[in-house]
Amino acid sequence: MTFDHYKQIRERSEYLCSNLETEDFTIQAAEHVSPAKWHLAHTSWFFETFVLKSFLPDYQEFHPDFSFFFNSYYNAVGERTARHHRGLMTRPTTEEVFDYRGYVDEQMNFLIDGYLTDEVIEIVLLGLNHEQQHQELLLTDLKYNLWQNPLLPAVLNIKEYPKQPERRWIQIKEGVYEIGHQGEGFCYDNERANHKVYLESYSIADRLVSNKEYLKFVQEGGYDRPEFWHSDGWAWLKAEGVKSPLYWLVNNDDNFCYTLDGKRELDLEAPLAHVSFYEAAAYAEWAGYRLPTEAEWEVASSEFSWGKRWEWTNSAYLPYPRYQKAPGAIGEYNGKFMVNQMVLRGASVATSPGHSRSTYRNFFHPHYQWQFTGIRLCQKIN
Amino acid sequence: MTFDHYKQIRERSEYLCSNLETEDFTIQAAEHVSPAKWHLAHTSWFFETFVLKSFLPDYQEFHPDFSFFFNSYYNAVGERTARHHRGLMTRPTTEEVFDYRGYVDEQMNFLIDGYLTDEVIEIVLLGLNHEQQHQELLLTDLKYNLWQNPLLPAVLNIKEYPKQPERRWIQIKEGVYEIGHQGEGFCYDNERANHKVYLESYSIADRLVSNKEYLKFVQEGGYDRPEFWHSDGWAWLKAEGVKSPLYWLVNNDDNFCYTLDGKRELDLEAPLAHVSFYEAAAYAEWAGYRLPTEAEWEVASSEFSWGKRWEWTNSAYLPYPRYQKAPGAIGEYNGKFMVNQMVLRGASVATSPGHSRSTYRNFFHPHYQWQFTGIRLCQKIN
Amino acid sequence: MTFDHYKQIRERSEYLCSNLETEDFTIQAAEHVSPAKWHLAHTSWFFETFVLKSFLPDYQEFHPDFSFFFNSYYNAVGERTARHHRGLMTRPTTEEVFDYRGYVDEQMNFLIDGYLTDEVIEIVLLGLNHEQQHQELLLTDLKYNLWQNPLLPAVLNIKEYPKQPERRWIQIKEGVYEIGHQGEGFCYDNERANHKVYLESYSIADRLVSNKEYLKFVQEGGYDRPEFWHSDGWAWLKAEGVKSPLYWLVNNDDNFCYTLDGKRELDLEAPLAHVSFYEAAAYAEWAGYRLPTEAEWEVASSEFSWGKRWEWTNSAYLPYPRYQKAPGAIGEYNGKFMVNQMVLRGASVATSPGHSRSTYRNFFHPHYQWQFTGIRLCQKIN
Amino acid sequence: MTFDHYKQIRERSEYLCSNLETEDFTIQAAEHVSPAKWHLAHTSWFFETFVLKSFLPDYQEFHPDFSFFFNSYYNAVGERTARHHRGLMTRPTTEEVFDYRGYVDEQMNFLIDGYLTDEVIEIVLLGLNHEQQHQELLLTDLKYNLWQNPLLPAVLNIKEYPKQPERRWIQIKEGVYEIGHQGEGFCYDNERANHKVYLESYSIADRLVSNKEYLKFVQEGGYDRPEFWHSDGWAWLKAEGVKSPLYWLVNNDDNFCYTLDGKRELDLEAPLAHVSFYEAAAYAEWAGYRLPTEAEWEVASSEFSWGKRWEWTNSAYLPYPRYQKAPGAIGEYNGKFMVNQMVLRGASVATSPGHSRSTYRNFFHPHYQWQFTGIRLCQKIN
Repeated sequence: MTFDHYKQIRERSEYLCSNLETEDFTIQAAEHVSPAKWHLAHTSWFFETFVLKSFLPDYQEFHPDFSFFFNSYYNAVGERTARHHRGLMTRPTTEEVFDYRGYVDEQMNFLIDGYLTDEVIEIVLLGLNHEQQHQELLLTDLKYNLWQNPLLPAVLNIKEYPKQPERRWIQIKEGVYEIGHQGEGFCYDNERANHKVYLESYSIADRLVSNKEYLKFVQEGGYDRPEFWHSDGWAWLKAEGVKSPLYWLVNNDDNFCYTLDGKRELDLEAPLAHVSFYEAAAYAEWAGYRLPTEAEWEVASSEFSWGKRWEWTNSAYLPYPRYQKAPGAIGEYNGKFMVNQMVLRGASVATSPGHSRSTYRNFFHPHYQWQFTGIRLCQKIN
Repeated sequence: MTFDHYKQIRERSEYLCSNLETEDFTIQAAEHVSPAKWHLAHTSWFFETFVLKSFLPDYQEFHPDFSFFFNSYYNAVGERTARHHRGLMTRPTTEEVFDYRGYVDEQMNFLIDGYLTDEVIEIVLLGLNHEQQHQELLLTDLKYNLWQNPLLPAVLNIKEYPKQPERRWIQIKEGVYEIGHQGEGFCYDNERANHKVYLESYSIADRLVSNKEYLKFVQEGGYDRPEFWHSDGWAWLKAEGVKSPLYWLVNNDDNFCYTLDGKRELDLEAPLAHVSFYEAAAYAEWAGYRLPTEAEWEVASSEFSWGKRWEWTNSAYLPYPRYQKAPGAIGEYNGKFMVNQMVLRGASVATSPGHSRSTYRNFFHPHYQWQFTGIRLCQKIN
Repeated sequence: MTFDHYKQIRERSEYLCSNLETEDFTIQAAEHVSPAKWHLAHTSWFFETFVLKSFLPDYQEFHPDFSFFFNSYYNAVGERTARHHRGLMTRPTTEEVFDYRGYVDEQMNFLIDGYLTDEVIEIVLLGLNHEQQHQELLLTDLKYNLWQNPLLPAVLNIKEYPKQPERRWIQIKEGVYEIGHQGEGFCYDNERANHKVYLESYSIADRLVSNKEYLKFVQEGGYDRPEFWHSDGWAWLKAEGVKSPLYWLVNNDDNFCYTLDGKRELDLEAPLAHVSFYEAAAYAEWAGYRLPTEAEWEVASSEFSWGKRWEWTNSAYLPYPRYQKAPGAIGEYNGKFMVNQMVLRGASVATSPGHSRSTYRNFFHPHYQWQFTGIRLCQKIN
Repeated sequence: MTFDHYKQIRERSEYLCSNLETEDFTIQAAEHVSPAKWHLAHTSWFFETFVLKSFLPDYQEFHPDFSFFFNSYYNAVGERTARHHRGLMTRPTTEEVFDYRGYVDEQMNFLIDGYLTDEVIEIVLLGLNHEQQHQELLLTDLKYNLWQNPLLPAVLNIKEYPKQPERRWIQIKEGVYEIGHQGEGFCYDNERANHKVYLESYSIADRLVSNKEYLKFVQEGGYDRPEFWHSDGWAWLKAEGVKSPLYWLVNNDDNFCYTLDGKRELDLEAPLAHVSFYEAAAYAEWAGYRLPTEAEWEVASSEFSWGKRWEWTNSAYLPYPRYQKAPGAIGEYNGKFMVNQMVLRGASVATSPGHSRSTYRNFFHPHYQWQFTGIRLCQKIN
């Protein structure tokens, strides 16, 4: 743990905002997204609250009101802005938030230079991983926020569309396997304990469903045929008027979509993105396959390439055997979300470098489309 | 399969309504409950639609509009009344619905006497199990509907409060176990295929949490302390103003509750009922235990007594390996609900005789309290 | 004031329900309508509360809970069922409500025979006028409640469609006129005090807009052209998806509608019914006219025939000069509604005999369509 | 009409924003308020659309997308941003909007110097009055937007609290009076035609209700006593949890409030502000008086001082006799709002200099509190 390592990760957050206008930092287009300014401040608040206030002698808080503004959901840390009001907080200004970041970094420099213990390192590492998680959210939330604007401004020059090979099926044999995180490296509490699972034999695709394949599902009436959909998925689709993945601008004449880099032609060979779990499951049903469970995904993951899309699994987000949440506020990090959400595996084009591993358990409610979410197919072996 | 067997099950539905006034059959106090009249008709519609129309030669439909009125959710069978409008359908009258039941039974008599094949038997058995499921809903929905009335009318003379022994812990060893339905008897598609699971060692209580135990949780501020609750559970509790299990009439002076048999004193030794999954999980957290998974429940179930409360497990309702849904409308029975719901195991005081087994997978969204739902505790073995 | 007079008015309420099934009495399809059973009981509660309890010595209340069930909105009289829960009250049953009516009538007989003073007569008269108001609501609410049912059951054999003559314009000269109720007969507090108004000259149609005329507005795109609509009206139309008057079943091939007497062909020559104020005003704008004010209506009313439709005026419901509300609960009758509502003048096919006069001020929020509401046109004289 | 006159009014809009941070210009805390940026741009769009495009030869539009962004509600001018999305439009930026203002002003300079006709002057005058109306909204919307922030930032150094004298009653005699705008000066279409009204004698207070007087109403339980409230007002108060005027920060120990100039002690002698019509009417009822009608206000207005608060009248916003709306888009200015709103007379501390007259008819829905609204009492003469 060096300050350079810390600084390198922190600077990426600011880099991701390098194309923004001052106004872009403040808005919040839906309750489930946050303003860019909020992400920048909240990640700093995390270091201030869980590291500096506890471990740096004589630390002076940057501003007495910031904890109220930038606490996310830690009930144990006290009151906070109502989530859906985050986009109304014009003060502190963006400039003040950048000052806050600078101040926290300076103080972290003192701390890393003089007060590093194993206990501190552990929390700083958590803080850096936390920052990286928010870097992904920063991008996806910005994309959602700027998408509201008919001018479709670009967020950043990031190409969303990787190439991928022809589909090949990987076979996995029946038996007891072990999943979950082992060893010394950093992981979240939800990846532990590593444990045995019994899997029946299955085969799993070595690449993701492409835009072209999904477009066929759309064009053949997939969104009008309830037999492919979960009951809750069908109700969602009807209530929201969903007709396609988020950000598609597809009509009879054109296939466009909105990307981080602005409006672009839909790359038909690239992996699909921005589908909800409901859409992923309906597509798999229509195509005659199913989604893998998270254990099936993890066991096979060394045999395929992954990392451009978060892949919906058919596993609900639940605790592993011997899961233990941390004591205190840090314990709110993962455990309290273990209901009503589905596990996603892999990583995406928006994931920060060095922030992915095959045991990583991402999770979202099944109706969300705003992450870079895609589909990998699976089937039993006859 | 004899007509007597069929008739005996069908008659229970009518028996359950024997205390009702004509007006009681029609109302619907919330979208998730149905009018008694609707249950009586819908179960008959099931036999008419899936048995009589397909297998009884020259069958004459009872009334051309009834399919519209009494289809529940079978998209494959066509249009139907909006679910939340069921309680506004004063016609057909209760009397006409009883006539409908009589007609369907008479025709089923012809069919059972003269046209029984293996294929028919299979669907009739499904229809009878379907009727039994609706018998439980009939009771729980009636309880919910009549609860709206300040007079708190009784539904039926059913005692909700069984006795139970002191708590003892049952130990299960680590290893591969097999769960799911085996053999020839009737089961739903969701109980198959039987399959192997790997369980770590655990111990599980041989009885349910009592009203007294849960009352302590309430009195010690359990509903005011977010640290025990799932994030979604806390939001639910705040949005709905939940302060206790459904049907409790508890204040500083009195401990009453509403039962099928009217207003009664809360039996403190009896097993708790009418908690949501959120409450069940929060209670377990507060008490220092956890809920069992459905596999843990099933593997241990031969060693404890069960059947008075549906027991929330910490398993999401998901397909078993090799799960196959039936073709056509019947295939909508189970599979399309396999997201966002939690599995309950056991049975309840409202379950019809002969309608329970240890592989039975009941499921509800985690916020529902209106079923006879209770809590069994579990813990790892150190 | 004789008991026969009282009884004759009371019996009409029961007559209006003579075609109903028991189930029909209980339901409530929207918050602004009430169950038939509720109207029957509430009007009896009015006599019990404001007459019998106060003026009949030793009067024994019929049932201690009925005041809770059947108080409408009198805050001064205490707690009551939430308005939107009225349709869930299966008990007291319809039969018990009829018993209640019988008991109240019997007791009123004693009172009228033995305890009649001027003060009592005044309140009994108010009670009878109140009953007649509810008779109209009983019919319009029943129509709305049974309209939910695809079988479109008839409420009662009432023909809704009167004939009317060719349109002629009545001229009124500029000057000071006097409006409001004068003299000794019964009127509501809102019709007083009679007072002077200054009117500019105008001409007013001697008949109402017909179905044929309004159909032309619909067919020529009236519901798609914001320029004719109030801003709030346009928002209402878009939010609710309104495309025509309530109860119309009009498409390219057929012109049907739902009437008290069941489904009938739309009588094109008959006066239009079931439009909101927004529709009335938009129609008038489209046709190049305007709606009259209530003063214009009242001043001219002796020169035209009226009484088949409530006629929307362009007057908001506000107090007359020197308006005084009665002391106590009776004072809640009218005054507290004097905001956000528009005045309707005339009477309708659903109005009880003897319950109309030219000074009568009916009032509803401008979006309601479920009364028998029509349109009379007006214009300035050039 | 000179460019200096035009420029002086336009510059006030920018002056009102002189204390803001860039972020403050964009947000919108509720559907009924707009971002500051939007007001600045919309008022420019008005000149561009109704003046420059029509009357300045070879006028080049500033930006092809701005009409979509900055049209308010003119259906005749085409599509526009959904009202509740205005606060999500980070682009065009504040800087671009200021450029837009500069461009429009430059072009207006050309127009005023070279192309002024009577027709043009009339529309320019309307545009300037429109700008002044938006200047008041700019202030009140900013106050509402920044009020969301726990830091309670100041909008501008404006003192809200004038002094006022002891109350004296002005007597007006019964008779025919004339109200509405006469003569040549500018007025809105809704102030015409001037016309005769018949008024009964009344007396009206020469000053407004003070904070101290209203505080007494609050402290004596005015918000808990339905007998003083309109039925709709009581429902509003219960649904919204209203306990006091907007912006009050009053508790047992302190009387503070939020003002344009930040958090200040409540000046008890100053006129009350920020009450809804419901509160105004309930206060008057509690105090034993009533609100004046708009005619009563206008007839007496020369005898009292006014202009610090918009004064709720008991008149609904309806057309005057012979009211004519202008042809085309300009006709949407006033007429389409003439339902469901109450008239306010006077002006306020936020009203732009030169933008008030005794015939001015302001109007809002009765539940709004965010304008500087106060109470003048009235009574009949016995």
